[in-house]
Amino acid sequence: METLGRHLVVELYACDATRLDDVAAVEAALLEATRAVGATVVGHAFHRYAPQGVTGVVLISESHLSVHTWPESGYAAVDVFTCGGLDPRPAVAVLGRAFAAGEARVQEVVRGLAPEVEAGAKLLPDDVVLSSRLERWML
Amino acid sequence: METLGRHLVVELYACDATRLDDVAAVEAALLEATRAVGATVVGHAFHRYAPQGVTGVVLISESHLSVHTWPESGYAAVDVFTCGGLDPRPAVAVLGRAFAAGEARVQEVVRGLAPEVEAGAKLLPDDVVLSSRLERWML
Repeated sequence: METLGRHLVVELYACDATRLDDVAAVEAALLEATRAVGATVVGHAFHRYAPQGVTGVVLISESHLSVHTWPESGYAAVDVFTCGGLDPRPAVAVLGRAFAAGEARVQEVVRGLAPEVEAGAKLLPDDVVLSSRLERWML
Repeated sequence: METLGRHLVVELYACDATRLDDVAAVEAALLEATRAVGATVVGHAFHRYAPQGVTGVVLISESHLSVHTWPESGYAAVDVFTCGGLDPRPAVAVLGRAFAAGEARVQEVVRGLAPEVEAGAKLLPDDVVLSSRLERWML
């Protein structure tokens, strides 16, 4: 199986604190994000902290999606890592809307064996860079 | 709670295929890596694919560690994301040894609210960059 993967490292800022602190809502959002990229779920784990904050991951056949929230700061750290040719970007839009994010910063990292990354680069969208870059995506 | 986090995006190459395909060994290695960084486990999920490959995550109070393996390619995609002032680097050494990796590529991404990242940068080791960079770490 090809190792080429796309990993979005996502910071969601100015989110709704109530939504970030609701473990059921965070789990539902992560599962909706998983469906949005067309991935297959093989496992998941979620946890709510006291006094606040939620952490969770969905393992997919094509890698994983994770989220860690700081309701008191309106901040969620999100990772969407897909292989198998899936586009991870729809998941970011789903999570941004679910948490009512005011701003997002997204960095993409292309992963895998070096020869497959080089060969696969031709198949990636124009906005993917092979090294990495920081940019701001307004939702 | 401070949002400043350190996220190591790690590619382990030329690993031992048998170790990468053993779900119990991968889980044990990830838990050992978690102990090496001094983190507190709050959840975990692991899955073995047919015909081969293992995927897994350990949720920690300080974010997460994940691994996805391609035994046929000797490749493991590893993430070590820590907040709360924990140094994620010992986990990479543990996993590199556990999988008998011949080579590793590590990229660090500093995460969190922009003002905390700026302020926290003074406390980070000299080898941490605030944007990101690709480099090779020989194990």
